[in-house]
Amino acid sequence: MKTQEAMVNAFIEGAAELDEATAALIAQRKALLGPAYRLMYERPLHFVRGEGVWLYDPDGNAYLDAYNNVTSVGHCHPKVVEAIRRQVGILATNTRYLHGAVLDYARRLLATMPSEIGHLMFTCTGSDANDLAVRIAQAHTGGKGIIVTETAYHGITQAVSEFSPSLGENVDLGVHVRTVPAPDSYRSENVAEEFTAAVRAAIGDLRRHGIKPALLICDGIFASDGVFDGPAGFLKRAVDAIREAGGLYIADEVQSGFARTGEAMWGFQRHGVVPDLVTMGKPMGNGFPVAGVAARPEVLADFGAKARYFNTFGGNAVAVAAASAVLDVIEEEGLLENARTIGRHIKEGFQALAGRHACLGDVRGAGLFLGVEIVSDRAGKTPDAAAATRIINGLRDENVLISGCAKAANVLKIRPPLVFTRENADELITKLDLVLQRLS
Amino acid sequence: MKTQEAMVNAFIEGAAELDEATAALIAQRKALLGPAYRLMYERPLHFVRGEGVWLYDPDGNAYLDAYNNVTSVGHCHPKVVEAIRRQVGILATNTRYLHGAVLDYARRLLATMPSEIGHLMFTCTGSDANDLAVRIAQAHTGGKGIIVTETAYHGITQAVSEFSPSLGENVDLGVHVRTVPAPDSYRSENVAEEFTAAVRAAIGDLRRHGIKPALLICDGIFASDGVFDGPAGFLKRAVDAIREAGGLYIADEVQSGFARTGEAMWGFQRHGVVPDLVTMGKPMGNGFPVAGVAARPEVLADFGAKARYFNTFGGNAVAVAAASAVLDVIEEEGLLENARTIGRHIKEGFQALAGRHACLGDVRGAGLFLGVEIVSDRAGKTPDAAAATRIINGLRDENVLISGCAKAANVLKIRPPLVFTRENADELITKLDLVLQRLS
Repeated sequence: MKTQEAMVNAFIEGAAELDEATAALIAQRKALLGPAYRLMYERPLHFVRGEGVWLYDPDGNAYLDAYNNVTSVGHCHPKVVEAIRRQVGILATNTRYLHGAVLDYARRLLATMPSEIGHLMFTCTGSDANDLAVRIAQAHTGGKGIIVTETAYHGITQAVSEFSPSLGENVDLGVHVRTVPAPDSYRSENVAEEFTAAVRAAIGDLRRHGIKPALLICDGIFASDGVFDGPAGFLKRAVDAIREAGGLYIADEVQSGFARTGEAMWGFQRHGVVPDLVTMGKPMGNGFPVAGVAARPEVLADFGAKARYFNTFGGNAVAVAAASAVLDVIEEEGLLENARTIGRHIKEGFQALAGRHACLGDVRGAGLFLGVEIVSDRAGKTPDAAAATRIINGLRDENVLISGCAKAANVLKIRPPLVFTRENADELITKLDLVLQRLS
Repeated sequence: MKTQEAMVNAFIEGAAELDEATAALIAQRKALLGPAYRLMYERPLHFVRGEGVWLYDPDGNAYLDAYNNVTSVGHCHPKVVEAIRRQVGILATNTRYLHGAVLDYARRLLATMPSEIGHLMFTCTGSDANDLAVRIAQAHTGGKGIIVTETAYHGITQAVSEFSPSLGENVDLGVHVRTVPAPDSYRSENVAEEFTAAVRAAIGDLRRHGIKPALLICDGIFASDGVFDGPAGFLKRAVDAIREAGGLYIADEVQSGFARTGEAMWGFQRHGVVPDLVTMGKPMGNGFPVAGVAARPEVLADFGAKARYFNTFGGNAVAVAAASAVLDVIEEEGLLENARTIGRHIKEGFQALAGRHACLGDVRGAGLFLGVEIVSDRAGKTPDAAAATRIINGLRDENVLISGCAKAANVLKIRPPLVFTRENADELITKLDLVLQRLS
């Protein structure tokens, strides 16, 4: 059995000196919650309050949050808080009774998608959404085979963990799962061609084993693989390939959805393809548990004819109130545009830093979803996970929150709240510069 | 393919005349949410407000809720509402940072369980909890085989739907799943013996097919099977059998937990056995999405050594605030005792009705989790699903909410909020009497 720490930026016991209070909380956690939970950072953080882009520890120290995309319109956004506070005192039942708000929300959300996508179903988490999407895809295609990128994360249910290779080598992939290399635009000149060829090879291998292909699932921006956005449109031919093979294309928008890319409401839109199923989660309720699956009606028909779906909390009136408020805030505060302009500003700032710090091998991403690849050698593009870890923890010590990802654990993962200001961006850039200077 | 309506008390289009507003909402639902959703009742209900044991339709008509066990301490309980309102404005992050409240809650919840159970993990739904519990059990035992009762419902993820036979014949059971008859105390004098023999036979059949048994999962009170509480202690020998075979016993307390049985905090406690894993959900946050898995530490160790578990919303500070408030209310309002005394009062009332209405074949259950078996012939104990449907819809027309369950779809399922008063109970009994009079 390999070591358990497949998780980038996981806290590892004994790796750093801890203050007494932190050590005591960690000991309690271990005793009460058991061994499967992970903390982040060499010295884990304890937060007691959040507001906008800031998280506060018990001593009142403020941390600039450039990582959490759940609280995507900012921690405790007053409008979302107010919507939850109002509805929670009125009603929270379930979808076996009629309620108007869930319908109004579905209509509004579906209006942000291509017209081919006509239904919306509600779950509580992105994992549940991907789990349901796979059931729908398998019912429609009659196949089981699943194709994912090799460091993908799609969720934590048993079925979904079987196609979430980033969980590590000790979590078995399903026998019906094939992985393809991530679309590594840093190392390849022909991402579209190579990715398509890999998907075609995976389809062939599934068939060779008597497994009918059911689906290709891709992040709008390939997140845990290393924040690969790739050239716009590169995904189209791989989608054609899976469809030719009788399979579906599921767009996992749990991370790239809700305006994060700054280009469009959904990450898949940059590829000029219309998915068969779209899954969404994390930022949908700005922290309130709500997630969902949008589907082409003809794809959902087979599942609906065979099975019923009921998610006790999915689509209840409070969840829908929170989710509606998130859409309001995205519109009213112009957050799609903010993600684009502030994201571009950060990207340019990072690119300028790359001129002075050779370890910044690649700066990529779209909008406020950015990746910075850390290398020990620019010519060879050699991943430097140790340096990435030092940078992530160095920023943490400067009260700035980011994390890491990628197969080689060497990519900085930066996903600030969509309300990030130019001032916040400059602080992030300045502090990264400072940490990099210390590193060299 | 069989008809899709495996769900007891499902709305069936065209079965009854609907008013215009209801028909319009249903048409919108179908268009927006697609074909997999189900409504309850011949004439579905539309609720806009809830308070205590009451749900209100848009015209202000009050319905007595004797069914919803999610809002277990009453719709919009002021103390739970206040806890959510407070915390939602302070912080809602996740378990990759330290937070004291999740630990305080885990300590408090675990104190309600036998001392052998030492860890608590957080999910959002009971489905996720059962999905995680199975992953833990399979990691610990090295087996895959699952034994469930033949009309069990344990959840909706792909893995869990494979051992939730109540979803209907069109949702395939897993090849590693075996079903045993429910412990039908109405038709058997020897529930313990027969149930144990069936579990032993299922173990043998799994092995005969080369499948190592991993677990037996049972509701504290067998819910969708027909609200079978059985004689206290009857489960013990079946648990012994699965353990002898190297498998674990998972107690599904999603419905029977949190004081519902009136006897103890957890349904399994009536059997004098300590489970290996306990799953919980629906009433845990009184409508706020929160659920969990409690585990013996030695059982969780193998999973924790191999895999990490992260549930984005599971155990966040708002979920924990809601869940803590629920425990406060159960204690402060004496709801365990209320479930016992009011449950007994209802049971006695139903038993009295059974003296006058021959179709009430059996009245069973514990606390505020009651089942009434409807039969066409007492001597033959012949299930009468049509009469059960008429009673459920008759009560709905009298503004009282219950539903149905069981393999033969002939059992009234009654699960009022734990704050049900004697007056509420008398109204339920009186109206059932009225509906039964009309039926005969």
